[in-house]
Amino acid sequence: MAEWLPTLITQTPEQGFELAIKMSRMAVKATQPDAAVRDRLRGVYAEDADALIAVSQVAAQWFATIAAANDYWRSAS
Amino acid sequence: MAEWLPTLITQTPEQGFELAIKMSRMAVKATQPDAAVRDRLRGVYAEDADALIAVSQVAAQWFATIAAANDYWRSAS
Amino acid sequence: MAEWLPTLITQTPEQGFELAIKMSRMAVKATQPDAAVRDRLRGVYAEDADALIAVSQVAAQWFATIAAANDYWRSAS
Amino acid sequence: MAEWLPTLITQTPEQGFELAIKMSRMAVKATQPDAAVRDRLRGVYAEDADALIAVSQVAAQWFATIAAANDYWRSAS
Amino acid sequence: MAEWLPTLITQTPEQGFELAIKMSRMAVKATQPDAAVRDRLRGVYAEDADALIAVSQVAAQWFATIAAANDYWRSAS
Amino acid sequence: MAEWLPTLITQTPEQGFELAIKMSRMAVKATQPDAAVRDRLRGVYAEDADALIAVSQVAAQWFATIAAANDYWRSAS
Repeated sequence: MAEWLPTLITQTPEQGFELAIKMSRMAVKATQPDAAVRDRLRGVYAEDADALIAVSQVAAQWFATIAAANDYWRSAS
Repeated sequence: MAEWLPTLITQTPEQGFELAIKMSRMAVKATQPDAAVRDRLRGVYAEDADALIAVSQVAAQWFATIAAANDYWRSAS
Repeated sequence: MAEWLPTLITQTPEQGFELAIKMSRMAVKATQPDAAVRDRLRGVYAEDADALIAVSQVAAQWFATIAAANDYWRSAS
Repeated sequence: MAEWLPTLITQTPEQGFELAIKMSRMAVKATQPDAAVRDRLRGVYAEDADALIAVSQVAAQWFATIAAANDYWRSAS
Repeated sequence: MAEWLPTLITQTPEQGFELAIKMSRMAVKATQPDAAVRDRLRGVYAEDADALIAVSQVAAQWFATIAAANDYWRSAS
Repeated sequence: MAEWLPTLITQTPEQGFELAIKMSRMAVKATQPDAAVRDRLRGVYAEDADALIAVSQVAAQWFATIAAANDYWRSAS
């Protein structure tokens, strides 16, 4: 697999948010490498309220680290 | 989609709280883009105690990052 | 709604704890604005061990941010 | 109720650990003030593996804040 | 009980990891002091995938605090 | 067991991510040392959406600590 995480630095908070979503999914991929299975499971949890809340929790945790890495994009404000 | 997160900086803690709620929901939206499905699911979990507690947990996690970004709004106190 | 969160600064750790409980509840309120529903649900989860443990987890997360904002009330010790 | 949390500062890590357990329980108490109910529920979750793991998670979160407040008791080492 | 947590300082990250596991278990012990019950429950959750994932989450939370206390063992690298 | 965690320092964020996955698994191993049981359980949770989301949450928590240890790999950017 080509390098997918060369840096935690992003230009904007929104790109940091997108990276958080990506990291959430890469961690799932590390456990379930089969894309077809992941797609099937996403169809299930995208209709499940508890799972969607948990997804947001996970994204928030990844984002916390990315935001700290970027010093909260303060200099870009 | 237009840029929705230009900055983590808000003028007051309360605006930071509102941004935390918004980020919680945008992370859900990234997984379930269909607004009709999200509305239906919200009707379900708004009546479920465990889900509401989890929602608060998620908001707290997003808020932690926003508060750090704003240096806890200390200078505004 | 009148401004309810003008600052994260409190005079004592105990007031910070109370603010953490309040913020936990305001995040629930943002999702379930109907006070009668919230009261009914509280009656349920106040009798449920797992839910009470989760409530404490949520309060801990909010408190972490409030404590950092107050520099852990060190100067008041 | 008399003041129960005058400070987050403790003399040793172990006292900080005990304070974390106490704060976990005070957060439960804020939601379920009836001691008899709490005692009954504790009898239930003390026999439940998932609940005990969750209890440890909650204590860890409270402890993180207390440890930071005490600068990790480094000067006492 | 003799003092079991005199310091958060360890010589290596691996010893910090071991301390995190120990603190996870001491928090369980604070709620369920009966070793026979804890042993029985461990036999159950050691065969349960969700419980094992939760155990890792708890250890990660304790480890975060221990790692910060040790300044991430940077000077030992 | 030979030393498996000599340092939290990695050369790139991606290696830090891989270390986070490894630490997640070592924490599971501390509770369930039998590799055959772990393999069997992984077969179960790799097909379970909720478990996979939880796995990502755990990895995020371990990664947060590793990223802080590496000062977010800023000097490598």
